[in-house]
Order: sequence, then C-alpha cells, then structure tokens
Amino acid sequence: MTDQPVSNTEGSPQARAREVIFGRQHDRIIERLEALDPTLAAFTREFAYDTVYDLPGLDLKTKELIACALLVSLGSPPELRTHLRGALNAGATEAELRGALLLCVPYLGFPRVVGAFEVLRHHLEDGQQKE
Amino acid sequence: MTDQPVSNTEGSPQARAREVIFGRQHDRIIERLEALDPTLAAFTREFAYDTVYDLPGLDLKTKELIACALLVSLGSPPELRTHLRGALNAGATEAELRGALLLCVPYLGFPRVVGAFEVLRHHLEDGQQKE
Amino acid sequence: MTDQPVSNTEGSPQARAREVIFGRQHDRIIERLEALDPTLAAFTREFAYDTVYDLPGLDLKTKELIACALLVSLGSPPELRTHLRGALNAGATEAELRGALLLCVPYLGFPRVVGAFEVLRHHLEDGQQKE
Amino acid sequence: MTDQPVSNTEGSPQARAREVIFGRQHDRIIERLEALDPTLAAFTREFAYDTVYDLPGLDLKTKELIACALLVSLGSPPELRTHLRGALNAGATEAELRGALLLCVPYLGFPRVVGAFEVLRHHLEDGQQKE
Amino acid sequence: MTDQPVSNTEGSPQARAREVIFGRQHDRIIERLEALDPTLAAFTREFAYDTVYDLPGLDLKTKELIACALLVSLGSPPELRTHLRGALNAGATEAELRGALLLCVPYLGFPRVVGAFEVLRHHLEDGQQKE
Amino acid sequence: MTDQPVSNTEGSPQARAREVIFGRQHDRIIERLEALDPTLAAFTREFAYDTVYDLPGLDLKTKELIACALLVSLGSPPELRTHLRGALNAGATEAELRGALLLCVPYLGFPRVVGAFEVLRHHLEDGQQKE
Repeated sequence: MTDQPVSNTEGSPQARAREVIFGRQHDRIIERLEALDPTLAAFTREFAYDTVYDLPGLDLKTKELIACALLVSLGSPPELRTHLRGALNAGATEAELRGALLLCVPYLGFPRVVGAFEVLRHHLEDGQQKE
Repeated sequence: MTDQPVSNTEGSPQARAREVIFGRQHDRIIERLEALDPTLAAFTREFAYDTVYDLPGLDLKTKELIACALLVSLGSPPELRTHLRGALNAGATEAELRGALLLCVPYLGFPRVVGAFEVLRHHLEDGQQKE
Repeated sequence: MTDQPVSNTEGSPQARAREVIFGRQHDRIIERLEALDPTLAAFTREFAYDTVYDLPGLDLKTKELIACALLVSLGSPPELRTHLRGALNAGATEAELRGALLLCVPYLGFPRVVGAFEVLRHHLEDGQQKE
Repeated sequence: MTDQPVSNTEGSPQARAREVIFGRQHDRIIERLEALDPTLAAFTREFAYDTVYDLPGLDLKTKELIACALLVSLGSPPELRTHLRGALNAGATEAELRGALLLCVPYLGFPRVVGAFEVLRHHLEDGQQKE
Repeated sequence: MTDQPVSNTEGSPQARAREVIFGRQHDRIIERLEALDPTLAAFTREFAYDTVYDLPGLDLKTKELIACALLVSLGSPPELRTHLRGALNAGATEAELRGALLLCVPYLGFPRVVGAFEVLRHHLEDGQQKE
Repeated sequence: MTDQPVSNTEGSPQARAREVIFGRQHDRIIERLEALDPTLAAFTREFAYDTVYDLPGLDLKTKELIACALLVSLGSPPELRTHLRGALNAGATEAELRGALLLCVPYLGFPRVVGAFEVLRHHLEDGQQKE
C-alpha cells in the first residue's frame, strides 16, 4: 500500500496546482468541462489535478513544462494553450517555454513542434491585446 | 535570420549536454550509432545534442525530465533508459523521476506509464548490482 | 484458405452495417468519399463496411462503441461524429456512449477524451435543433 | 458538481471489475504494480479500476472489448494480454475477441492488428497447456 | 463508381506485388498469418496486397520505400523487416533504404529512426550469414 | 565518422530541395517560420532541408512521396499540403500522389487517409482557381 492518498479534495492553505495553472480562467475551464460531462469534470478536477498534479516532488513550473511537451506529442490539442499559459503562470519565462518546445524537435520531429509554436504565437498575440 | 548558430561543434569549457547525459556510456553510445549508420550518428551528435540540447534556457535536469516524458509518449523505446540515467546524471532524484512519469498518467493514460516504470525498475535493479 | 468471403457485395435481406450506421446520411457520405477519390470510396464501402463490418460475431452496437473508442485514440477525426451517430443509430444510449468515452481515460489520458466529448456535445446540440 | 463519486473504494456485494478481469492473476498483478511504484499502483486500483471501470452503464464484457481495441491502438503493450484474458473472463467468446481485433483493421491498419493477434495466439497456446 | 476492381484475385501474367515483396518467404508469411487468423490472412492477401498494392501508378520500389517509412512511424513493428527486405527485392539499394529512413528524422524524430536502423542492421547481418 | 557534412549551407549550382518543394511559396514559408521562432526556422532550413533533404541517394520526387505518407501518419498537419504541392513540384503526377495516399490505407487505416484526401482536394480546388 501507499501513503499517497489518491483522492485528496479537502482545501489546503497553499494554492492548488489547478488554481495557479488555470489562473483567471479557472472557473470557466471547470464549467466547460462540467458542460461536456460531469463525470469527466470530476475526474479531471479530483484525479488529474487534485491528486496527480498535487503530488509532491517536482515544482509546478517543471510539471507544466513537461505537460506542454506531452501535449506537443499528442498533436497540440487545445489543452496545449491552457498549459502554455499554465507554465507562464507557474513562473516559466517565454524563453523557457520556447526551449521546451524546441527540445521536442529531436524526439518528435518538426511538424508536431511547428504546430505547437503556432499555438504559442496565438497565445502571445492575444495576450498583447487583452489577456 | 537567427543569431542561434545551428551547428556548434567546437569544444567549450563547460561539459556538453551529451557528456553529462551519457556519462560513462558516452563512447559506447556513439559507437553503437556509428555502427547503425554514420550519417544518423552525425545527426544525433551534431544536431540533436550539440545544437538542440546545448541551447541555453533550461537547465539540463529539466531538459532530461522533459525528454523522459517524451519517450514515454513514444512507447518507451530503449532511449528511455538512456535518458532516465541522463536525468539522474544531471542531478534529478529518483523521486523527481517518478514524479515525471506519474505526471504522464493524465496525459497519456496508464499503459504507456506502466511500461516506463518497467524500464525504470530494470535500470535501478541493474544499478544496485553493477552500474 | 478461409471460408470468409473477402468481398461480399451482393445485397442481403438484412440491412447492411453501413445503412444503419450512416442512416439518412448514407448517400451524402458515399458521395463525399467518391468526390475525394473513387478508389478510396470503393475500398471504404466494399472492404471496410461490406466486408469487415459485416463479419458475424459482434452486434452492431458493440462494433460502433469500439469504433468510437478507436477514433478517440486517433485524435477524434471527423469520422468520430459519424460513429457517435452510428452507435446511437445502432441502439446505444447516450449514457452508453458517455461510458465508452470515459473508459478511454485510463488508456489514452484526458486530452484525447476531452476532444471526443466536444464532438459529442456538437452532435447533441445540433441534433436538438435539426437532425 | 456530479453525483458520481470519484473514489469509491468500499467493498460491494457484487464483484468489482478488477476481480473479474484479473481473475486468478489479481494479486500477482497488484503486487507487480506495487513493486513498480506504490503511487502508480494506487492510481491504477483506485482510479482506473474502482472508479472508472466500476461506472455503471456498459456491461463488463463490452468494456473489455473496448479496452482490447484501445490497447491495439497503443501498439499492443503487455496490458493487451491482461485484457484479452479479461474479456474472456467477462464472458466474451474467442470469436467475439477475434471480431473486435478485426474491426481494428479499417481504423488502425494491419500492422497493429497482426501484433495483437500474435498476443492472442500466445495467450491461447499457453492456456491450452497450463492456464 | 470506380473502375478499379476492389477484389482482383485472378492470376496475372506479371508477378504480383506480394510475390516480389515476400520473395522466398512468401509461403511462410502467408502460413503464419493463416495460423494467427484465417480472416486476417484473407484480408491481408486479398485486400492489402492483391488490391491496394496492385493498384497501378507507383512502381513497386517506391511503394516499398513508402511502406518502410510508414512502418517507422508505427514504431518499427516486425513488418518493417519484411518491407526492408521487400524494398531490396523490388530493386532498392541499401543506400536508398538508408536515405528513406534518414528522411524520417525531421518528420518523426530520432528515437523512431534509431529503432528502424536496428532492424535494418539485424537484417543485413543475418543476410551476410545465411539469407 | 562520416563524410556527410551535417551543416551544408553554402550555395550550390543545382537548386536546393527546399527551393523546388516550396516553389513560389518559399519566402512566405521561411518568413512564417521566422515569425514563429527564429531558432525553429534555422533548424528547419539548415537541418531539415539543407542537410537531410539534400542528402544524395533518393530523387526528390520519391522523397516527397515519402514525406506525404509520413505526414498522413501524423494526422495530416498543415505541412501535408506543403508536401503534396512539393511532390507535384518535384514531378509527381496527381495519380502518383493518390497512389501514395491509398498505400497508407493498409498501414494506417482509413480515417488518417480520408483526412489526407480532404487536404488534397482543398489543394486541387484552390489550384484550379488561383494558384
């Protein structure tokens, strides 16, 4: 058995990973998931975030850089933008984000990475205007 | 044009990424690649390592944790073991490695991650005996 | 040799799988494939549907739930919507469809499944209005 | 919020999905996961099985046929054998299993499916001797 | 409709693609597929080879180089060796094969390609001894 | 060591692969990559094109047909259109392109290939009007 509680939903004094990652988009993201499927939303919140992401060990910035790379490997679904923003919210610089995406080139090839930089560009351009 | 030199093969006072990552296996790995295909070996050494990996920005430990996650996404080819060892060589703890693999669960699902932990187990068991 | 005829295009008294799956969209889907490439359309109709799908063994509802899961694994291409509708046409309930998509979470991770629920939501919303 | 409890570990009068799927291999599989990583084992048991698999809606045989197809899409990792056996344990016939694998051909192509039939053959041959 | 017959099994004066690709291994490969599943074997022979591969347009050498690249993308399953040999049987030189594998680097990254060169090396070494 | 220079950026009397592949879109494509990330643009130009693509061995038409197939395997990202056009620019006929896409069916299944034919259709329709 493990001492690691799998479901760990009681509030904690320090901010939860999902509060930092989602930032001001937190409630909108949770509501969008609820609208898709309440069970999916519960799994995301309670398992993916409040259990896996809240595991001790790695700092949140490193977790988010890893998450971005994994989303590049999956073909840059919309979640990539959430986690590019999440990495920045967790303290990564734009240069570090670019470094994480470039490191994907030798592992995944160029097409996956070009697609990811397109997502980054959209995020940065929108941000200059309104975010 | 970019100021980033794409091919950057002259020696540098600080250790190159591949020297830290490969450690004592360095010459064996390069020779194995040469035996597979000399052009593939040159691309790996000069582009993947001496150009991409040597980009400034992220520290080598973070790069190697990202590399491990990307290799989990590819189905844990033999390179995963090289980079699990590389992450440890670059200063990651075993707990950090386990954290990086567990973070892959919500992105990639369980089968990919179970396979990666098998590779980690083989590496750690061998290491206790001889490495 | 096998007794299973590979090409089996003669009409049969019971409805063919593709007639149930495509439903009222049948002719539109076939025409769209013909417009893309006549050989591709022939392969789809005669091999994928009239040969593979018409194999005995599994009932059509189960086949379509499996097809939906496979399309989630492929990143939810437009065919996912065709087969979400196909599963409903073959007798699956919306709850069964949701169950099949949720079962993909531990195998494929969240991003693939979130994308699939987006497709399901579009399908259900459109259906309330006009389909 | 959802009424679906995300973590649902108390015993129930009916057999849990993992008890049927793993059958006589249950304790061995859990112990093997514990040896890989206790947190991974807890996630597998409490989230993948006792939460996702225990969702109502689909019968266990259908869930296992879907699981087999998803594992074919992932390149037939060792988990495929566990779930081919799980599908049989849940009441699927060998003909239904073969039907599920053949249905993967038009979605995933032949190489993935040939690999899956190799796993099935190994399972059936071993079973004739000792399992 | 298309003029392209989907199933085209009558003998022809010129060698079928599968006879050239499989060469002396032809009967062994067909028997191995029959032993896995007779329907799978029939689909492979009648659809994949005698229908798709026998389409006019590309010469067989080009088809086999494309096939090798596709199998690299799938993680180099055992079929890769069959088609590396098939490309050589269809007139490709070893240098052309190496060129096709190296071209995969910018599209798929290094790990997939290193795995493919391992398969090529095994094939070439075995060939020097006995094939 | 290899005689193959990894970085080979000096001009040559014969047209570089990227000049033929990109054709009239050359400067637009390079500028778009520069806008995404200057280092990514440099890697693409100097490694992917001026090093890998300029390797001797295969003719450019064959390289581009292989590239198209690899991009189908990646889920037809926007680069597929660039290389469908590149294959035509390098001398492939539309029939040869269709043959390369159809050959992907037995390796990758139908959904990937249907998506690729959609990209081809868009390219051909646009071309009749303006390109």
